[in-house]
Amino acid sequence: MALTAPLRGVVPPVCTPLTPAGEVDTASLTALVRHLLDGGVHGLFALGSSSEVVYLTDEQRATALEVVVNAADGRVPVLAGVIDTTTPRVLEHTRTARSIGADAVVATAPFYTRTHEKEIARHFRTVRAEGGLPLFAYDLPVSVHSKLSGALVRELAVDGTLAGLKDSSGDEGGLRRLIVALGGAAGRASGPAPGFSVLTGSELTVDAALLAGADGVVPGLGNVDPAGYVRLYDAAVAGDWKAATAEQERLVELFGLVDAGPADEMSRNASAIGAFKHALRLLGVVEHGTTGMPQIQLGAEAIAVVSQRLRAAGLTPVR
Amino acid sequence: MALTAPLRGVVPPVCTPLTPAGEVDTASLTALVRHLLDGGVHGLFALGSSSEVVYLTDEQRATALEVVVNAADGRVPVLAGVIDTTTPRVLEHTRTARSIGADAVVATAPFYTRTHEKEIARHFRTVRAEGGLPLFAYDLPVSVHSKLSGALVRELAVDGTLAGLKDSSGDEGGLRRLIVALGGAAGRASGPAPGFSVLTGSELTVDAALLAGADGVVPGLGNVDPAGYVRLYDAAVAGDWKAATAEQERLVELFGLVDAGPADEMSRNASAIGAFKHALRLLGVVEHGTTGMPQIQLGAEAIAVVSQRLRAAGLTPVR
Amino acid sequence: MALTAPLRGVVPPVCTPLTPAGEVDTASLTALVRHLLDGGVHGLFALGSSSEVVYLTDEQRATALEVVVNAADGRVPVLAGVIDTTTPRVLEHTRTARSIGADAVVATAPFYTRTHEKEIARHFRTVRAEGGLPLFAYDLPVSVHSKLSGALVRELAVDGTLAGLKDSSGDEGGLRRLIVALGGAAGRASGPAPGFSVLTGSELTVDAALLAGADGVVPGLGNVDPAGYVRLYDAAVAGDWKAATAEQERLVELFGLVDAGPADEMSRNASAIGAFKHALRLLGVVEHGTTGMPQIQLGAEAIAVVSQRLRAAGLTPVR
Amino acid sequence: MALTAPLRGVVPPVCTPLTPAGEVDTASLTALVRHLLDGGVHGLFALGSSSEVVYLTDEQRATALEVVVNAADGRVPVLAGVIDTTTPRVLEHTRTARSIGADAVVATAPFYTRTHEKEIARHFRTVRAEGGLPLFAYDLPVSVHSKLSGALVRELAVDGTLAGLKDSSGDEGGLRRLIVALGGAAGRASGPAPGFSVLTGSELTVDAALLAGADGVVPGLGNVDPAGYVRLYDAAVAGDWKAATAEQERLVELFGLVDAGPADEMSRNASAIGAFKHALRLLGVVEHGTTGMPQIQLGAEAIAVVSQRLRAAGLTPVR
Repeated sequence: MALTAPLRGVVPPVCTPLTPAGEVDTASLTALVRHLLDGGVHGLFALGSSSEVVYLTDEQRATALEVVVNAADGRVPVLAGVIDTTTPRVLEHTRTARSIGADAVVATAPFYTRTHEKEIARHFRTVRAEGGLPLFAYDLPVSVHSKLSGALVRELAVDGTLAGLKDSSGDEGGLRRLIVALGGAAGRASGPAPGFSVLTGSELTVDAALLAGADGVVPGLGNVDPAGYVRLYDAAVAGDWKAATAEQERLVELFGLVDAGPADEMSRNASAIGAFKHALRLLGVVEHGTTGMPQIQLGAEAIAVVSQRLRAAGLTPVR
Repeated sequence: MALTAPLRGVVPPVCTPLTPAGEVDTASLTALVRHLLDGGVHGLFALGSSSEVVYLTDEQRATALEVVVNAADGRVPVLAGVIDTTTPRVLEHTRTARSIGADAVVATAPFYTRTHEKEIARHFRTVRAEGGLPLFAYDLPVSVHSKLSGALVRELAVDGTLAGLKDSSGDEGGLRRLIVALGGAAGRASGPAPGFSVLTGSELTVDAALLAGADGVVPGLGNVDPAGYVRLYDAAVAGDWKAATAEQERLVELFGLVDAGPADEMSRNASAIGAFKHALRLLGVVEHGTTGMPQIQLGAEAIAVVSQRLRAAGLTPVR
Repeated sequence: MALTAPLRGVVPPVCTPLTPAGEVDTASLTALVRHLLDGGVHGLFALGSSSEVVYLTDEQRATALEVVVNAADGRVPVLAGVIDTTTPRVLEHTRTARSIGADAVVATAPFYTRTHEKEIARHFRTVRAEGGLPLFAYDLPVSVHSKLSGALVRELAVDGTLAGLKDSSGDEGGLRRLIVALGGAAGRASGPAPGFSVLTGSELTVDAALLAGADGVVPGLGNVDPAGYVRLYDAAVAGDWKAATAEQERLVELFGLVDAGPADEMSRNASAIGAFKHALRLLGVVEHGTTGMPQIQLGAEAIAVVSQRLRAAGLTPVR
Repeated sequence: MALTAPLRGVVPPVCTPLTPAGEVDTASLTALVRHLLDGGVHGLFALGSSSEVVYLTDEQRATALEVVVNAADGRVPVLAGVIDTTTPRVLEHTRTARSIGADAVVATAPFYTRTHEKEIARHFRTVRAEGGLPLFAYDLPVSVHSKLSGALVRELAVDGTLAGLKDSSGDEGGLRRLIVALGGAAGRASGPAPGFSVLTGSELTVDAALLAGADGVVPGLGNVDPAGYVRLYDAAVAGDWKAATAEQERLVELFGLVDAGPADEMSRNASAIGAFKHALRLLGVVEHGTTGMPQIQLGAEAIAVVSQRLRAAGLTPVR
C-alpha cells in the first residue's frame, strides 16, 4: 500500500522469529505478520531494533524483509530499517529495501563513530537523495549515542528530506517542542510540514503522545498485543481519553514481561526481545522464542513469568 | 498550611531573586511569592534547582526559605529543598528547614560520590527518620547522575518513607510504570500508597502527565506564568483535554525563552534561569535578573528575546 | 611549611577517621598524619574525595582540617579541599581553610548544575582572587561530570590563576598534551608556567606519570602505604625506572583491597574508602573503619580480604 | 608472516585512502603500506577505526584488506578489523578476512544493542571458535559504549580465547591492573597467559605504556610517522627512557594536527582522520585526503595547519 502522508496509527516493529539454529523462521514470520494485520495495525516496521536487525546478516535481513513485504501483500505500508554505521552502508541497505519493495526506509544518525550535526544532516540528505525512498529518521540515543536535535528534525521535515520521525529518545519535552513548532496537536495539517509523521516509540505513554499531537506509535509490545494498541489508538482518536488511559494501563502491566529474564544473567535487550518472542510462541503465533547471538536465552522460570503476564492481561497462552 | 496527602496541583520551584551583588533580594522574593499565590498555585517549592539552591550559601538558603515561608503565610504548603551531597549534610539542611517552618523537604540521592541503590535507600530512610518532616524524593539524573529506580520509589512510598516524588528524570515510561504499580490514574486512592504524591518536573508535558495520573507539576516556568499552569491543571482535572492541550502548547511556546542566551557563551542553566528572572523583571515582579556566580549574565539581545516571547504568549512586559 | 612552586612529590589525600557514631575521630586523624609524615610524604591534601569531604558537615570539615594542620605542624604544606557546587559555597570553604591555616586550596569545577567553560574559568578566577590562597584545580569527571579542557588549564596556569592541577580524569593523553604544552618532561622549568604543579590522582600509574613529566601524585592508597609511594617517587626521580615499576606493581597488587566489598551490596566508593580505613585500623594507625553515611559498612569477610592484601604486600596487620 | 605470540611492537591501524568519489584508492593504499613497512613497523592493522572501517561497504572492506595483505607480502602479520554490531555479522567479516589471508582478527564487544558481560564473553568465544583465526579484543568504549572488564579479558586471555587486547579505553589504571595480574612488566612471559599481547591504542602515552609492560602500540598517528613510533619503541625496549620520552613528546606535538578542522563545523573524527590523510598526501604517500561519507572534508585553512605541524615535527611536505 502506498504510504500516506502523514503515516498514522499503530506501526509495530515486527519481531524476526528465528529457528534454534539462528536462521530466519520464515513461516513464523509470515504468521506474525498475519497476527499483526488481524490486530488491525496501520503499518509494519520491518528490520527495526525490536526486529533484532543488528543481529541479522545482510542476507537474513533481506529474507526477513521479503517475507514481511509478501505477507503484508499491500494491505498496509511496510517500512524497512536500514540500520548501519554510516552513509555508504545505509545506502546499500536502502537499495536492497527498495528492490524488495519496501514503501519507506528508517535510518538512524551514524553510530560507532563520533559525529557532528552537520554530518548527520548530510547523512539524511544523501540517503534521501540517493536512496529513492521516503525516509524516516529514527532517534534512539540509547543505541546511537547521539540525540537528533529538534532544530535539525524540523529543518529536514520542512525541506522534505524526512517523511517522518520515529522518536525513541524518551525526551518527551523535546518532542513536544517539535510538535508545537510544526503547528501543535490541532494545527499540524496547516503547519510548515503537513505531511510529516511523528511516531513515538515509547510504548508506555502512547495515550500521552497522541494527546500531545503524535500521529502514531511504533510499539515493540505491539507484536504481542496489536489489537490492544489499535484499541488505544482508536480511543484516542475518538477523544475518549478515559478508555485510552485504561487500555494503556493494561498494556503497561503487560509490558512487565520484559523484565522476565534475570538482570544479573542477561542484557535487558535479551530479556525484552526474548519475552516478546516467547509470548508470541505461547500465544501460538511463532514456533520458537530464540533470540540472536550472542544474547542469553530465557529460561523456564522467565518463560513462566511471561505466561503469567499474558494471562493477567487477558491474553490466553495456547501452550 | 498543613500538607495534604497527596499533595496536588501546581507547585512552582520559587526562583531566588538576587541583587546585583549576589545577595538574596528579599523584597523581590516576597513579591514573587505574592505573584505566585495570586496566580492560584497550590504549593511552593523553595530552594529547588530553579531556585539556584546550589548557588546559595547556607545563610542565603535560610534567608530565602524564611522569606518564602513568611510570604506564604500558611495559605499554601511550603516544600524546602535540602539539596546536598550526602546524608549528614542533607540532615543539617533538614533541621534548618524544620526550624524555619517548612512543611516538607525535598532531597535527591547522594551526588558527587558514586552511590549504590542500598545506600540511596538508607539515605532517604535516615533523612525521614531523623529529619522529622515529610520527605519528597527528587529524581533529577541530569544533576545527580543516578536515576531512582521505580522499584525503590515504590518501596519507599509503600513503607511511608516518602510523601511523594518530584520526577524530573524525563523517563516518562518509568514514571508510568510507577503510577500503574500504585493503582493507575483512576485507582491511586485505593492503591498501596494512597497518600503518595507524584509530581512531574517536566513542564512541557503536564497535560500528558496529568492524563497519566500524576498529581501535579513543579514547573520552573510557573514562576513566569503561574496562572497559565493553574488553568492547565484545572482543565485537566475537569477532563477538558482540548483546553489543557491548548494551554500547554501556549506554555511550550513561552518556554522558548530559556534558549535566549547564546549557547557558545553560557550554560543552558544560566540561560534558562536568567530568562525566568529577566521575564519576572520585565513583568514588574522582581528588581533584577541577576543569576548566581559563576553563571554568565544575559545580555541585551537575549533579554529582548525574552521580552518578545512574553508578548507572544500574551504576557505584557511593564519595562 | 610554605608551599614550594611547583609542589612536588607524594601528597596523599588524608582519610578522615570517624567514630562509629560518625564524628571525626581526632586522635586517629592525628595518628594518621604522623603515619604519613613518618612515611616521608611531601605534602598533605586534607578534605579531598578520599577524605570523604562530601560526607562531612561544615563543622566536621573544619575540625578535620584543624587536626591535619596542627599535626602537620609546618613540616609539609597542607592543601585543603573546598569541594562544593558553585563559587559562593566554595568561597566560604576557602575562607574557612585560610583562617585555619591551610597553605593552598583545591577546587573542582561547579557540579550538580550544568556549566559552561566560560563559567568554569570565571569560577576559578573568582576563587583565586577572593579566596586569598594558592589554588589547585581538581579534575575529577567521575564526580563533577565535566572535564577541564587542556586549553583552559593551560590558560589558567600561564596567567597565574592556578598553582597546579590534580588530575584524576584518567585522560592520560590529554594530560600528556598539557605537559608538552608547558615544556615537556625536561623543559617545564623554562616553560610558560614554571611554577605550575601537575599532580596525578591515578595511583596505579605513578611511574608512567612521572616519566611523562608529572611533578607528583595524590594517591588515596598512600594513606595505607605512604613509604611505598615515597620509594616509588624517589626511584623515578633517580631515573631508576626498573625499581619504580617494581614498586608500582607491588602497590597495584595492594590496591586490590578496594574491591573487598561485594559489588551488589555497596558502592565502589564505600568499598574503597572502607578498605583504606580498615587497612589503617588493621595496621594500628586508626581506631575504626567506619565510613560516612549513607555508605554501607564493610563486613567481616571483606575485612579479611583487606588483611590478606596487606600481608601479601608486606604490610603486617597488628590486629 | 605468521603471528608471533605475543605480538610486539608498532602495529599501525592502516588508513584507507579514498578517491574523491569515495572508492578505495588501491594504488595509494599500496603506497601507504610500503611507507609503513619502510618505517619499520612490526605489524599492520587493516580495517580499524582509523581505517574508517565503519565508513566502508563490505565490498570496500574486502578490497582494502586484499590490498594490505598483498602489499604486506608476508613481511609482517596483518590483523583485520571485523567491526560490526553482533556475533553473526562479525563472523561473516571473519570468514572474509580468513579467505583473504589475514593473520588474525580484531573484534569489539557488541554495539548499538545493549549487552551483558556474559553475552560479551559468549560473543568472543563464538567468534574464536567458529572464525578460525587468532582473535584480538578491541576495547574502545568511546565507540562501543561498554568497557571490557579486566576480569573478563583476563579470563579470555588465560583460556586461550584471546590472542591479545587492543586497549583504547583510556583506562590506564585498569590496564595496569590487568598487566600486573598477567605477571607484571618483567614477569609476563612466565605468567598465566604468556602468549597474550597487550597493545595500547593511546598514541600519546606509548612510553608510559611500554614502561608499564605493554607489548606494543596501535597508533593512528603511526600512519604519518611510522619511523617515529619505531624509534620510540626501540628506545623503550633498550631501556633508554629519556630518548623514548623525547620521541614521544615530538609525536605529541605532531598529534596536534588532529585538531586542524574547526570543531563547530565537523566531528573530531572527521578532523583527525582528514588530518592523517592530508598529512599523507602532503608527504607524497597518497593521492587524496578524502574521508568517508558523511564526514565533512578539511578545508584549505585546516590543511595549512596540518602542513605546519608536519614541518614543526621535522617531516617535510612535498606538495
